[in-house]
Amino acid sequence: MYDERGEKYLDCINNVAHVGHSHPDVIKAAVKQMELLNTNSRFLHDNLVQYAKRLTATLPEKLSVCYFVNSGSEANDLALRLARQYHGYQDVITLDHAYHGHVSSLIDISPYKFNQLGKEGKKEFVHVAPSPDIYRGKYRDDHPDPASAYADDVKKIIEEVEKKGGKIAAFIAESMQSCGGQIIPPAGYFQKVAEYVHKAGGIFIADEVQVGFGRVGKHFWAFQLQGKDFVPDIVTMGKPIGNGHPMSCVVTTREIAEAFGASGLEYFNTFGGNPVSCAIGLAVLDVIEKEDLQGNAVRVGKYLTELLNKQKEKHPLVGDVRGVGLFVGVDLVKDQQKRTPATAEAQHIIYKLKEQRILLSADGPYRNILKFKPPMCFTVEDAKFVVDQIDELLTALEEATGVRAGNERSTSAQHIRKMTNEGNSESDCISESINHINGTACRQKNDLYTDNCAMPCKRIRT
Amino acid sequence: MYDERGEKYLDCINNVAHVGHSHPDVIKAAVKQMELLNTNSRFLHDNLVQYAKRLTATLPEKLSVCYFVNSGSEANDLALRLARQYHGYQDVITLDHAYHGHVSSLIDISPYKFNQLGKEGKKEFVHVAPSPDIYRGKYRDDHPDPASAYADDVKKIIEEVEKKGGKIAAFIAESMQSCGGQIIPPAGYFQKVAEYVHKAGGIFIADEVQVGFGRVGKHFWAFQLQGKDFVPDIVTMGKPIGNGHPMSCVVTTREIAEAFGASGLEYFNTFGGNPVSCAIGLAVLDVIEKEDLQGNAVRVGKYLTELLNKQKEKHPLVGDVRGVGLFVGVDLVKDQQKRTPATAEAQHIIYKLKEQRILLSADGPYRNILKFKPPMCFTVEDAKFVVDQIDELLTALEEATGVRAGNERSTSAQHIRKMTNEGNSESDCISESINHINGTACRQKNDLYTDNCAMPCKRIRT
Repeated sequence: MYDERGEKYLDCINNVAHVGHSHPDVIKAAVKQMELLNTNSRFLHDNLVQYAKRLTATLPEKLSVCYFVNSGSEANDLALRLARQYHGYQDVITLDHAYHGHVSSLIDISPYKFNQLGKEGKKEFVHVAPSPDIYRGKYRDDHPDPASAYADDVKKIIEEVEKKGGKIAAFIAESMQSCGGQIIPPAGYFQKVAEYVHKAGGIFIADEVQVGFGRVGKHFWAFQLQGKDFVPDIVTMGKPIGNGHPMSCVVTTREIAEAFGASGLEYFNTFGGNPVSCAIGLAVLDVIEKEDLQGNAVRVGKYLTELLNKQKEKHPLVGDVRGVGLFVGVDLVKDQQKRTPATAEAQHIIYKLKEQRILLSADGPYRNILKFKPPMCFTVEDAKFVVDQIDELLTALEEATGVRAGNERSTSAQHIRKMTNEGNSESDCISESINHINGTACRQKNDLYTDNCAMPCKRIRT
Repeated sequence: MYDERGEKYLDCINNVAHVGHSHPDVIKAAVKQMELLNTNSRFLHDNLVQYAKRLTATLPEKLSVCYFVNSGSEANDLALRLARQYHGYQDVITLDHAYHGHVSSLIDISPYKFNQLGKEGKKEFVHVAPSPDIYRGKYRDDHPDPASAYADDVKKIIEEVEKKGGKIAAFIAESMQSCGGQIIPPAGYFQKVAEYVHKAGGIFIADEVQVGFGRVGKHFWAFQLQGKDFVPDIVTMGKPIGNGHPMSCVVTTREIAEAFGASGLEYFNTFGGNPVSCAIGLAVLDVIEKEDLQGNAVRVGKYLTELLNKQKEKHPLVGDVRGVGLFVGVDLVKDQQKRTPATAEAQHIIYKLKEQRILLSADGPYRNILKFKPPMCFTVEDAKFVVDQIDELLTALEEATGVRAGNERSTSAQHIRKMTNEGNSESDCISESINHINGTACRQKNDLYTDNCAMPCKRIRT
């Protein structure tokens, strides 16, 4: 990426420029179609059919009906409408810290947003399940079966809702939480959740807006990390789909689409699925395939994670490194055992990196997770370059603050043992963490990050 | 417009291809920017600032803050959020037959949509004011002051809402109703409505998604037809803004924007205002100016309306011709005095025109309004060509059905006199019309259009 003075930046965060900034194949496809015809979707065009075929070919067979829209927000809003129409149920279960979009209906189901409005922010039909974060969440790496434990919490929510006469229309989750802090749900979690949600008559919506289109490397969709026995009922797509062009898609089953059609309300979207958008979408799929960007995500992602894990060995500020393909998070902590979020340190690092012309961001409820989601053409050299800089910055930070490598360090195994022994004191800290965003809880106890308390409320999604 | 076999069509309806299909200047601007940089709106870019300056220069001074989004739906959803945040009020007044978009929050305020769901469709916070249609509405061309009468109905709604403890967040209306049947509100109506809405603490939202960007000719925005003394608080834009590229905008006052910002909830839109969208938006504004498309809309619109008015003199099927610039509606009727919608005839005409490679559509609650909203480069020759074809089709239809020119004809003046004398019998018919869409009322009395009764439920917006 270059700025207006021609200065070169290494882009580690732009998952919108999925196949690389200004990819010539994508531009070529756009121009060719723009010169021929671009019009609203009132007119039938082969590009739409061809694109729908190509897109559904990447998905399990039952996901066969596409609705083309213009943004991740439009996609998630439509997914909610589909889910609600299916059985006429209204309640929605969402994950803590989730962000699903900026339109009214999605602010309602995004704790990342509505928590900022105080207690009145949460609507009655919305139910928040804990984020399946095994590093910082309710059930951690020391838990014998966090997947089941987190899923059981969803089951309990369903039971409570039904006890009060409510009915679950949908469970919605990003296949991996992005704003929520680069969270990779434990395998098996989605299967169990889907089982409970289906039993209640609800729909499982997998939000792939941030993480889809091969980013995880081994699979085209992040939900596939859960195993072949898991298929969501609705998949929503966005950001990377058009390499920056405003477009997105909702894919669902014939059954759900037919129930939606049976309402008598037609769905029409002026720009959605226009010939140019579809040409661009097709070109993006071609480039992913032609340039083996999934293979690249596997190789570079593995290398990047290895390098970062070496940083974890070396730097006490690095609490956790987690990642699949080119979706990687580095959880910075002030204290390895308490896992106290090192928010100011994370902000310091991303600002210093920017001075060195490296673009990285920090996210998660405490903005302490360094967030990698680079264009899929990211190289091993790029990975080496950014981690070397992070290494230097961490060293300098630790020297300045008196934290030394090895000082407060515990290996992962030691850590797990310690946590098991510590029990509730750790849990107290977490339940406080979960309530942080209302802006008061975090000021009460943990003075380690008091001065950064206001910052999480100013996060923005990229 | 050309189909896949290279057959040429005359496009009379595509307001998305505003400056003409595949306009080279727009493509050139898109390609230039795509080759340089397209990215999400996390990154600052001059195009956004330049475009915001150009766009606000077309608007009254107080409309000075732009939010760039991706579709008319995203724009109207954001407009509602801005309005509700302003004073914390919730209730919304919308016009009958209105359509404001496809996301959940907009289905809620679009009678065009929610009426299809039966009585349960209308939410409690939504209040429907009569469409200010002086040909087919509650107060007609025989009323001494329809603008005040329609505005008084809005006033009454506000009073009733307040009596029940509600508070009006917004009044929203297309500056001219498109799906509602090419309705041009009587001048002065918006001023009076704004006065009542402001007094109640609400916001006036002018939806220019269909009708903005110079379509009305004399002005850049359709709300300006109401007079210089009317300025909405929020203007939403869409369709024509990018000549087919998915983009849109919400423009509001600094005061409303600041109240929104004060909520602490940041607004972020991934694709909204990206460098390519803004480059395209700028190019569209340039073309409108360079090719004097507003002047063209004045000239060709005047000519088209004159030709259609001649058809009205000649054909009893033509009940009303109304239009401003290149936004024109022809209300087809089976009976001039009762103004019975000629739905089947309108459908016949648009299908026959399509066979002759002319694209026109029919809309309004009864789908009996021929709807012109062509690309702004529409010529006098185009106008002559389509009206000649319509003339032939009307003649053939009238011959086939035994309706003869002059037979059931009344001049406009005669008609107004008759209506005044007829009084309530006419009103009964109208109140029935207004309830038509729930699907039963229209079957009860007027067997003239019984067989077309189901059709209005299948309308789609273009």
